[in-house]
Amino acid sequence: MSRPPGRKQENHKISGELFVLTYGALVAQLCKDYEKDEDVNTCLDRMGYGIGVRLIDDFLARSAVKKCRSYSETADMIAQVAFKMYLGVTPTVSCSSAARNEFSLILDKNPLVDFVEELPAERASLCYCNLLCGVIRGALEMVHLPAEVTFLQDRLKGDAVTEIGITFLRKAEDRKHRRNK
Amino acid sequence: MSRPPGRKQENHKISGELFVLTYGALVAQLCKDYEKDEDVNTCLDRMGYGIGVRLIDDFLARSAVKKCRSYSETADMIAQVAFKMYLGVTPTVSCSSAARNEFSLILDKNPLVDFVEELPAERASLCYCNLLCGVIRGALEMVHLPAEVTFLQDRLKGDAVTEIGITFLRKAEDRKHRRNK
Repeated sequence: MSRPPGRKQENHKISGELFVLTYGALVAQLCKDYEKDEDVNTCLDRMGYGIGVRLIDDFLARSAVKKCRSYSETADMIAQVAFKMYLGVTPTVSCSSAARNEFSLILDKNPLVDFVEELPAERASLCYCNLLCGVIRGALEMVHLPAEVTFLQDRLKGDAVTEIGITFLRKAEDRKHRRNK
Repeated sequence: MSRPPGRKQENHKISGELFVLTYGALVAQLCKDYEKDEDVNTCLDRMGYGIGVRLIDDFLARSAVKKCRSYSETADMIAQVAFKMYLGVTPTVSCSSAARNEFSLILDKNPLVDFVEELPAERASLCYCNLLCGVIRGALEMVHLPAEVTFLQDRLKGDAVTEIGITFLRKAEDRKHRRNK
């Protein structure tokens, strides 16, 4: 069921509300299917992974970006190009480790929760937007950058901002070392 | 969980591929949940209905359209404004009844199936995009235009085009009569 190769990339832009509401319907369905929030979170992450694996081709074709030379460049690319392209927002990027392999994407505004006021009390552990973590993880893996991606803060849970943490699993030094071999 | 009233309508446009893939994940999940295609179709239609009921406010605010004076105008509005806004395509409209209450939206290209080559053999009765019918039905009901909305042709099933049929349930004459009362 994959996209035929060589297909022309059309660049029609749409308003995101139908997407946001459809995403809400997906989360609601998974909440019906799984009693435990953890299972919903896992399922969203797994679905997102499958999406990221396929979306990366579209992203590379559409953005015409060059190969990133550092994790820092990669994190900026995700925030400034990919988020802008698919969600219409640009998170702030911060680097949170001395090893320079941990980054945070900080969202003042998360369009995916536009129609959600708050999580129901019985769903307090739900990572509503966990699909995004999976998408990032899947897309990164396809360009040989294995990473852990998780929500560190979430405005839906009362945090001041929404923060997605990306930890690249190979140390930056390892990459450099490999390149110099 | 509804959007707070009076919220500013931001008009950020996005590329639809993340939406299209997320929709695919939703359909795949429902195919896991329900063995019968008919149950998946019903579920998609019901989800779409709930989305349409909420999307109509966004549509009216964003499009600033005036009240339609005929079913024909309404069908044109759905095709030229709503489809363009949320899916990035403009179906052709045709009127298929003497009573002027049945219309078809004909899609040469359906972006929702961009990543789908064909339906699996065991899912031959699946109306993959049935969510759209529900969305249209829900949105129309909120502006007091009850309608039946179904797929009449589907390129995924080998038809030449994709055709969505809309039958307004009150005869055009009834509406006129009510207006003149």
